[in-house]
Amino acid sequence: MKARVHITLKHGVLDPQGKAIGHALGSLGFEGVGDVRQGKVIELELAETDEARARAEVEQMCQKLLANTVIENYAIELQA
Amino acid sequence: MKARVHITLKHGVLDPQGKAIGHALGSLGFEGVGDVRQGKVIELELAETDEARARAEVEQMCQKLLANTVIENYAIELQA
Repeated sequence: MKARVHITLKHGVLDPQGKAIGHALGSLGFEGVGDVRQGKVIELELAETDEARARAEVEQMCQKLLANTVIENYAIELQA
Repeated sequence: MKARVHITLKHGVLDPQGKAIGHALGSLGFEGVGDVRQGKVIELELAETDEARARAEVEQMCQKLLANTVIENYAIELQA
């Protein structure tokens, strides 16, 4: 089973990387670009085949290692 | 219109960050974790409201700035 975890900064947390991308797009001539935020995606291959157990395991991974839950949100997507 | 761009390393390109995450998960006691790959997500707010034009614009942004097309793939998702 494959899992994809999206990790994004919480609302209200400054995102200097996103800001830099926004400025760079502006100076390349792209107009009408508003807020830009950058996050991470982590793709994992799991031996677990049961969806509920896989989700619980990835949830644990996010809490313990993948995301900094003080400033980041995460979303888990599973594919069989 | 909102756009979300997923940027992932092409197959065959070494991903040391993913490898490090895989090892860290292993040493935290998570078993059955196979390949781990890390990528980026960039979320953009666009003034453009036409879907086709927005997609073309984001495609250009990916080619010119967001992705390194030699080693990275990108996928564009639009939300009205």
